[in-house]
Amino acid sequence: MNTSEFRRRGKEMVDYVANYMEGIEGRQVYPDVEPGYLRPLIPDSAPQEPDTFEDIINDIEKIIMPGAASPACTELETVMMDWLGKMLELPKAFLTEKAGEGGGVIQGSASEATLVALLAARTKVIHRLQAASPELTQAAIMEKLVAYSSDQAHSSVERAGLIGGVKLKAIPSDGNFAMRASALQEALKRDRAAGLIPFFVVATLGTTTCCSFDNLLEVGPICNKEDMWLHVDAAYAGSAFICPEFRHLLNGVEFADSFNFNPHKWLLVNFDCSAMWVKKRSDLTGAFRLDPTYLKHSHQDSGLITDYRHWQIPLGRRFRSLKMWFVFRMYGVKGLQAYIRKHVQLSHEFESLVLQDPRFEICAEVTLGLVCFRLKGSNKVNEALLQRINSAKKIHLVPCHLREKFVLRFAICSRTVESAHVQWAWEHIKELAADVLRAERE
Amino acid sequence: MNTSEFRRRGKEMVDYVANYMEGIEGRQVYPDVEPGYLRPLIPDSAPQEPDTFEDIINDIEKIIMPGAASPACTELETVMMDWLGKMLELPKAFLTEKAGEGGGVIQGSASEATLVALLAARTKVIHRLQAASPELTQAAIMEKLVAYSSDQAHSSVERAGLIGGVKLKAIPSDGNFAMRASALQEALKRDRAAGLIPFFVVATLGTTTCCSFDNLLEVGPICNKEDMWLHVDAAYAGSAFICPEFRHLLNGVEFADSFNFNPHKWLLVNFDCSAMWVKKRSDLTGAFRLDPTYLKHSHQDSGLITDYRHWQIPLGRRFRSLKMWFVFRMYGVKGLQAYIRKHVQLSHEFESLVLQDPRFEICAEVTLGLVCFRLKGSNKVNEALLQRINSAKKIHLVPCHLREKFVLRFAICSRTVESAHVQWAWEHIKELAADVLRAERE
Repeated sequence: MNTSEFRRRGKEMVDYVANYMEGIEGRQVYPDVEPGYLRPLIPDSAPQEPDTFEDIINDIEKIIMPGAASPACTELETVMMDWLGKMLELPKAFLTEKAGEGGGVIQGSASEATLVALLAARTKVIHRLQAASPELTQAAIMEKLVAYSSDQAHSSVERAGLIGGVKLKAIPSDGNFAMRASALQEALKRDRAAGLIPFFVVATLGTTTCCSFDNLLEVGPICNKEDMWLHVDAAYAGSAFICPEFRHLLNGVEFADSFNFNPHKWLLVNFDCSAMWVKKRSDLTGAFRLDPTYLKHSHQDSGLITDYRHWQIPLGRRFRSLKMWFVFRMYGVKGLQAYIRKHVQLSHEFESLVLQDPRFEICAEVTLGLVCFRLKGSNKVNEALLQRINSAKKIHLVPCHLREKFVLRFAICSRTVESAHVQWAWEHIKELAADVLRAERE
Repeated sequence: MNTSEFRRRGKEMVDYVANYMEGIEGRQVYPDVEPGYLRPLIPDSAPQEPDTFEDIINDIEKIIMPGAASPACTELETVMMDWLGKMLELPKAFLTEKAGEGGGVIQGSASEATLVALLAARTKVIHRLQAASPELTQAAIMEKLVAYSSDQAHSSVERAGLIGGVKLKAIPSDGNFAMRASALQEALKRDRAAGLIPFFVVATLGTTTCCSFDNLLEVGPICNKEDMWLHVDAAYAGSAFICPEFRHLLNGVEFADSFNFNPHKWLLVNFDCSAMWVKKRSDLTGAFRLDPTYLKHSHQDSGLITDYRHWQIPLGRRFRSLKMWFVFRMYGVKGLQAYIRKHVQLSHEFESLVLQDPRFEICAEVTLGLVCFRLKGSNKVNEALLQRINSAKKIHLVPCHLREKFVLRFAICSRTVESAHVQWAWEHIKELAADVLRAERE
């Protein structure tokens, strides 16, 4: 949507809200629809080509408003998570549609998704061990529980361990910053020998530091064999999996118990919107379920409806699936794929500019929209370069450490970025690099 | 703001966003301001009388935009939490302004606030006990930890206990559904004798079931004396404390370590916005703090800035303080007080209608906007009445159980509610009650 259409449509929406407020006394306080009303009213997958804004607004009045906040909010979320799951070609076990055991939920952030997965895994392993040995206390089990992630995993994984009250161990990543079978197996062997109970593994697809990918095809089967919950965190990279040429990066997700990525990062859906799927809904709800009278309802035990409050940390929820519905329809799958492809192409364009300059090096494989690079030389000179870049305030880079190296990260992430911006940024960086190198020689 | 002004202002805002997008290349990518820039630019408390919309928008361009998302998002939140704390006359120890140790943060929901408080308390007690007895493991301590709340507390408290992996015990409330000293002390004595470690108490001001108030003046000193963290959950009732005539309900908050209520429930701020204060910021950050390179910044250890990511479960955050700023200024404190008072007056109006009808009884003291009532008689007849009311879909009531009684809850909660609506609802309820009683006799 260009700016002039945004002006027009935005103002129409303001009127829509105002009209709603003016006419609110004419609306029913509780909907007439029955649970499950929504799914038959909308297509079972996202459109390939864009829909018009009129079509979407007409559907709001026709499909959403009669379902009020409840059950429309829940049911649209379930269907949108199925749409998105299909866009990623997630295994059917993660979808809700065929009355399976899996399903998707919108969390606020990948941190919450990791925590929710860890808590579900914790409950599951405690129940399993107590079923086998009823004399074991929860505390006696928790003391021995150990979770794993790569040493490149996001800090929120360590935080989930802290909150969940379980040990979290970092598995040394390989030369490509990926978690591999051998390192994981070594840790498992050592920890089992020490009497610990491995129960949870977070594999990252697209790490924050350098967008590296843990080896799911190696790690997944180990988790299944060893009865450990596998959570796959693809917070950033997940959006790219809607493109067939990047889908192979998700191979191995079939071994996972839960999978998460953030459409708010790279799929044009506004913050916050973190998409999480599980293979067994009952694993989540088992960890959280409490039913006081004031939250009971007439469809409580019918199995017809999804009580998302049992899937998450907070009780209340916003109607976040609406923005997914709008974005998926306004762009169509093809439009979203084109958006991803453009960003990846621009990052490769930046990569090739870096490679053409012998003073610089690329520090990790460029797969998606992130380029890790640095001046050949000391950390000090790179820290100086970063400082100059960020002080100039023309572009903004966030650094990282890869092993002992201080590395600059060039991320393509604006909706409106073009080749001209990338070219301009590189000229700017080169100029500041020259200043830094000159200052160093003096 | 009436609907016609909303139409005008809403459309101006659409243009503001569109203009921003069109002019974005002219804006600096990183702000020039220094940490702490914002506080001197705005008043140190909320206005008593409403500001105009023009004034607010002018301040956005003048005060917020130069501070970009960071640090404006953080700094406005800190100041808004001080404004709101002052509106409630919270003890100064909870405010940030005088470089004290306390401060406020916006959480997504009261559930999250309770969980965050419980986790902070858990970390604190573990550290304290390990400092005294270094041989104690975390698991050995956690096994003995016990938290308390009234048997009327919200289910999210029990859930926080589940997530935090600690026992949570319900203290029997008194005849007014309040937690009192004697019942708490009895539980403490029993549990200490059994070798348990009491560490955390949630006191509720305005329970979900019947808006009862735990006795803070009794419970608070016990918590302080026994070294237990006291968290005060006033999710619904908290908004009323901005009125001097209701402020006494908050007396005893000076004994608390943390306090929370939801401006999104009754203070005209859109969902989600849950306001939480602590007396010691370091208690929260100590429970969560992790600092990877990609989240470090140049003011890391200066003490000048607040890293809210250490105060909450998620890592990312939205700019939720903006809506507080708009609401507080558009209404002024007096406007907000008038709004609360009107609701309380309407609930008393409903109460007196119920009291005039000898077939009905009031089931709990009416203090704020909730009236618990029922037909004198069996639970069955009241369940039938509720079913008729909700099936008619003219109004919607959510029931509860008070001890053995099934009770109907009439809640005043719409922004636009008037006496005429209350009168109409009562006539409607009486009519359906007559039907129910007739059906029972037949």
